[in-house]
Amino acid sequence: MCDICVMNKVKERMLSRRNFFKGGAAVAAGAAAGGGLVAPKQAFAQAPRTVMDMTHELSEEFPTFGGVPGISYDKQFDFAENGYNLYVLTVNEHTGTHIDAPLHFSADGQSVAEIPVENLACPLCVIDIRARAAEDRDTQVTPDDLTAWISEHGEIPDGACVAMNSGWADKVGTDDFRGADAARGGSLHFPGFHIEATQMLLEETNAACIAVDTLSLDHGPSADFATHYAWLPAGRYGIECLAGLDAMPASGGTLMVGAPKVRGGTGGPARIMGLA
Amino acid sequence: MCDICVMNKVKERMLSRRNFFKGGAAVAAGAAAGGGLVAPKQAFAQAPRTVMDMTHELSEEFPTFGGVPGISYDKQFDFAENGYNLYVLTVNEHTGTHIDAPLHFSADGQSVAEIPVENLACPLCVIDIRARAAEDRDTQVTPDDLTAWISEHGEIPDGACVAMNSGWADKVGTDDFRGADAARGGSLHFPGFHIEATQMLLEETNAACIAVDTLSLDHGPSADFATHYAWLPAGRYGIECLAGLDAMPASGGTLMVGAPKVRGGTGGPARIMGLA
Repeated sequence: MCDICVMNKVKERMLSRRNFFKGGAAVAAGAAAGGGLVAPKQAFAQAPRTVMDMTHELSEEFPTFGGVPGISYDKQFDFAENGYNLYVLTVNEHTGTHIDAPLHFSADGQSVAEIPVENLACPLCVIDIRARAAEDRDTQVTPDDLTAWISEHGEIPDGACVAMNSGWADKVGTDDFRGADAARGGSLHFPGFHIEATQMLLEETNAACIAVDTLSLDHGPSADFATHYAWLPAGRYGIECLAGLDAMPASGGTLMVGAPKVRGGTGGPARIMGLA
Repeated sequence: MCDICVMNKVKERMLSRRNFFKGGAAVAAGAAAGGGLVAPKQAFAQAPRTVMDMTHELSEEFPTFGGVPGISYDKQFDFAENGYNLYVLTVNEHTGTHIDAPLHFSADGQSVAEIPVENLACPLCVIDIRARAAEDRDTQVTPDDLTAWISEHGEIPDGACVAMNSGWADKVGTDDFRGADAARGGSLHFPGFHIEATQMLLEETNAACIAVDTLSLDHGPSADFATHYAWLPAGRYGIECLAGLDAMPASGGTLMVGAPKVRGGTGGPARIMGLA
């Protein structure tokens, strides 16, 4: 079956799930972005003492899912000539440390500008699969991983970001980040969220987003993008290529997700900071 | 004297000031972005209880300094046809709620990616000039305004964002936001920072940035961009078109400045959130 056929089949299956989840708490999260001061969901138990940059630097060299540069620069004004510097940038939305908005994998889901602001200040739950990923680059976050986290740290808070730390952020300057395997027709190899873990989060939690330190919410060899098609149409969002997870606590931190507020956008490069 | 001549003259004067400030605390702020957990500068006296979106939605319709759209959309993949939505965006860096990095008005200042992360979690000082701006659209923040704020709230904290609230955020959908005056050759009219207030902040504080709710750090009719040429080459940064200041306290809040981390960028659209 061709890739598109597989994707369409999964899409149909997931769209039927979508209506089930559409009324959920994470979807009906409240005030429109920009509507006023709102309370984050359990985000700050105490005053943060440190801030962590969790964003990779974006450039033409940053690895992309498709393998071609995700940004290009057009310098329109130069300091020596014009008295100031200014670029016009051309950017693929799904480049660098970036957001997948519900609209990315749905016909009419929330655009990146419509994600409620209280879902951008997220209690951070870090699922550490580094040891396993070092042995198996195609490994996935499973329901067992989530259950182990919950046993140690308690329930996943409403509005949380559940983040996979596979150790991939350190590989960003190497070919191992994409793991493209020419011998197997160029398929990619890196960790992601298993569809069963995704379904568990949808059914049992009000997490606002899932995050990966790799190029895709689905692991590299995925042919059906099952996690994308389950998670995003349900009105939740994703973060890809997150950096800095090694420095954050497994629980108790807060992710401030500086998602771009572009009208109708399907995602986009974001500045993400951790508070702990 | 032509605009460029004026700008060059001001530039020369300001560059000589630059060396004086280059060793200042705001410049030598510490760890490179992404270097690890760092302490913000007096940013959190207590646990924040609310979050405020301080970002205007960006679209082709958002007013720009130059009067032409600052963003355009190229839809490369469509859900109905391809199973997912994706745009490539072309964006003028100085569009929407956005950052002016030191590099915008200097030959070799910090790019937007080089602003230290601890300068992106800023104690927020709101200078309210709404009443005066309602009477005079060309009014400016003066040293007296800063002195009055300090008398009421105490010293301006290290790493602060000193933000002008002129009430302009409410005008964003109207021609009054740019205040273009065709009868006077199209010069613009909106409030900004007076050069004397800018110099006071440079000389007497370690504020990391100044912010305006208008299109420029300098007020609309400025012919010399004196505030840009004083502030940015000194290694501090600016925020333009900030939203939501009405909802934030005059002191005690924190601005989380989601500046884009684009290599070599001179600024760019940012997602900015207030915590209070």
